[in-house]
Amino acid sequence: MIHKLHYCYFVLLISVITSSSIAPCIAQGNDDVFFIKNIYDHSLQNGQCYQWLTHLSEDIGGRLAGSPGAAAAVEYTKQVMSEQGFAAVSLQPCMVPHWVRGDTEVAKIVNSERIGTITLAATSLGNSIGTGPGGITGRVIEVMSLDELMELDPADVDGKIVFFNRPMDPTQLHTFRAYGGAVDQRGSGPAKASSMGAAAAIVRSMTTRADDIPHTGVTVFGEGDRLIPAMAISTNAADQLSALMKHEDVTLYLENHCELKADKKSYNVIGEIKGSKYPEEIILVGGHLDSWDIGGGAHDDGSGCVHSIQSMVTLLELGYEPQRTWRCVMFMNEENGLGGALAYAAESNQKGEYHMAAIESDAGGFTPRALAVGGDKDIFEQKFPAVRAWRDMLSSYGVELTPGGGGADINPLKSQRGLLFGLRPDSQRYFDYHHTAIDRIEAVNQRELELGAAAMSSLVYLLDKYGIDGE
Amino acid sequence: MIHKLHYCYFVLLISVITSSSIAPCIAQGNDDVFFIKNIYDHSLQNGQCYQWLTHLSEDIGGRLAGSPGAAAAVEYTKQVMSEQGFAAVSLQPCMVPHWVRGDTEVAKIVNSERIGTITLAATSLGNSIGTGPGGITGRVIEVMSLDELMELDPADVDGKIVFFNRPMDPTQLHTFRAYGGAVDQRGSGPAKASSMGAAAAIVRSMTTRADDIPHTGVTVFGEGDRLIPAMAISTNAADQLSALMKHEDVTLYLENHCELKADKKSYNVIGEIKGSKYPEEIILVGGHLDSWDIGGGAHDDGSGCVHSIQSMVTLLELGYEPQRTWRCVMFMNEENGLGGALAYAAESNQKGEYHMAAIESDAGGFTPRALAVGGDKDIFEQKFPAVRAWRDMLSSYGVELTPGGGGADINPLKSQRGLLFGLRPDSQRYFDYHHTAIDRIEAVNQRELELGAAAMSSLVYLLDKYGIDGE
Repeated sequence: MIHKLHYCYFVLLISVITSSSIAPCIAQGNDDVFFIKNIYDHSLQNGQCYQWLTHLSEDIGGRLAGSPGAAAAVEYTKQVMSEQGFAAVSLQPCMVPHWVRGDTEVAKIVNSERIGTITLAATSLGNSIGTGPGGITGRVIEVMSLDELMELDPADVDGKIVFFNRPMDPTQLHTFRAYGGAVDQRGSGPAKASSMGAAAAIVRSMTTRADDIPHTGVTVFGEGDRLIPAMAISTNAADQLSALMKHEDVTLYLENHCELKADKKSYNVIGEIKGSKYPEEIILVGGHLDSWDIGGGAHDDGSGCVHSIQSMVTLLELGYEPQRTWRCVMFMNEENGLGGALAYAAESNQKGEYHMAAIESDAGGFTPRALAVGGDKDIFEQKFPAVRAWRDMLSSYGVELTPGGGGADINPLKSQRGLLFGLRPDSQRYFDYHHTAIDRIEAVNQRELELGAAAMSSLVYLLDKYGIDGE
Repeated sequence: MIHKLHYCYFVLLISVITSSSIAPCIAQGNDDVFFIKNIYDHSLQNGQCYQWLTHLSEDIGGRLAGSPGAAAAVEYTKQVMSEQGFAAVSLQPCMVPHWVRGDTEVAKIVNSERIGTITLAATSLGNSIGTGPGGITGRVIEVMSLDELMELDPADVDGKIVFFNRPMDPTQLHTFRAYGGAVDQRGSGPAKASSMGAAAAIVRSMTTRADDIPHTGVTVFGEGDRLIPAMAISTNAADQLSALMKHEDVTLYLENHCELKADKKSYNVIGEIKGSKYPEEIILVGGHLDSWDIGGGAHDDGSGCVHSIQSMVTLLELGYEPQRTWRCVMFMNEENGLGGALAYAAESNQKGEYHMAAIESDAGGFTPRALAVGGDKDIFEQKFPAVRAWRDMLSSYGVELTPGGGGADINPLKSQRGLLFGLRPDSQRYFDYHHTAIDRIEAVNQRELELGAAAMSSLVYLLDKYGIDGE
């Protein structure tokens, strides 16, 4: 009988699971080790990232630049920062594109003798024009790269629907590298297809997962390019279409109703606290407030927004007083134009500001694995050793300090010759959700999210206390 | 207009996301670096963990020792191992308890003036007896620890329902440590309550998450103890009950129909390949095949089972020929008795075997963060340096080699004086699912799962090639 047997195994189990321990190494000193422990404890007990993110991703939801959701997100984060101890919260105007998806989106195979009429899971790409109510019907040609397309005879592309189907490389441990190796098809493919005379373009969704979920994202046309409709189809749909094309010519019917309207005015939201000792040295944390319209933008980039706010709020709640000037920036329009980032950098440069450090979170709300450090090459080489001295304090929490930092919204600040950092969470799940309808709060784990803010808090603390010149 | 502007930002974005790289360090040599890269590539492209786990957790589902599910899991994993190149697959008999949950489980507040009759989300603990159809109605007393209970006057406990409500510590970075700090309430609380005369016991679920999901798990009674019904209630229910008790005395009605039947015969499933050069040196990989009945046991411990199988299958598929003897063991009855582990160790010791290394995976299918190393103290001190020499090859893949290894199923092999390893995946999400109805395949990410197997494969390869004596 079990209740007579093996009491020991229970005790033994407990001894196993409690036997590993965190032993923070001491670099700058014990004070820092203790303070960073306080940051982590506070973040895991009192962090508000998850509550804020729930409001942003679920109550507000999708918030593409120019949309009512984006306006609501501006107002909401302004309120949150005002309530959370930022001395000044301001709205910085910027112009943003105003792309609207429209209602119906259809992609279907209409001529197959083998499988009949089949609807493919599809979503329009940002900047796509609409087909209009009559749709576009065209023969499909499949290519695996931009180069393969450009080597075709334009006569063979004319009036066709070009299908870009190169998968993301599943063997890349860092999934952002796999994305980087495939996303030229989405970003530039439709413009190239247009230049060859295509009627429309479709792109395999940017994920290594085999599923029925289409991933949107921006496509970019150059000045003077003929604009064409462009959609992403799910990976399962892409595989089905590709397999079918080995047996028969396939005709697709595409219909969408996207529209690129006149540019609109929108805003970055900026919370600021002046530094008591070195007010001219700015430490920026930021994420982007806009998100694709089809989901809640929970990981991309609601997480980065709430990480940024919480990273500074935690320090304020712990009674830390900034020596340097802190800015928390909710950048507008990262997804389809960088209007906010460019406006921010332009004004900052015009004022002759110096961003000693800028930290961007735009890689999801998963367990933080690293803070990547970058900047101008010579600045990086000069300043990295001082920052690297902190690594043991962060690695105690599973966060490495690695080269390779920066981010789309902060890179325009590189010329100010400070350091640029990027939070690097575990990336394995990121492209399950990126730019989809399932990028919602359910995909976010509260502890993982708060730990991201804790990692950023710890870095802000060290940067503020020590600067980057190895004091 | 966006299509005229900022083509640059897209290019810039790509350069950011591709700028970090994996640079494996060279320890034992380039051959090993390349081979481990092959292991990872193969695992991410051809790994079958996810498919096997889907069958185990969804088609078979819950598989508590003695249940039909457990028997099906024995048969299924025997088939898989037989088809995947293990030279011999055998069933090793072991005796296991046969605890059956029964149908209805009810926990409700029945006397509240403030909130009326409220049902609490509850699940019986393994080894609980049933209340019988009449249920148990009793006043609740709340305690935060076993010590607090034992200091009470037994007269005040007599006939009551003891409510253990100490939360897991959310500030523990490693959630298994938080579990270790709270689970004595579940493991030993009901027996202590019984010894004080209680009619029944309820326990706050073992998770840091605030939700409505009750977590089951084993409770242990000592020989001669009076057996009482014991349940876990969800963390939200525990908070609600505790808050209510600040205002009024609370009476609960509990009903369940659990039954502890006669012990049954079950099996460990063992796949083996004899070593060509050192057949007497055994390398074991293993997880436990049984799981709690209320969910699919996807993370606990279906993941460990498929990790173990795949870790050896990958090497075989890459053409690697074992020099040492490999065993892949699906242990039966880890959850409520360790019948399988004890039978395995007993037979192994009786035969005078030497397990040079045993690797257990029983901490979920999340991104692997470490392989923890343990064993007898002197053996660990003697052998760890040889193993530690491999660390750069593993840390290139985000896997640390840390002290603290072992696991409930392999610890009985410690006396053979080999090394004991435990796979340590990221632990933040684990206790969202542990011992619940939502421990299902949806909670598992395919890439994270396959990476766990790749980490174990890499270690098996290095152990087989070099042993642990620093050749």
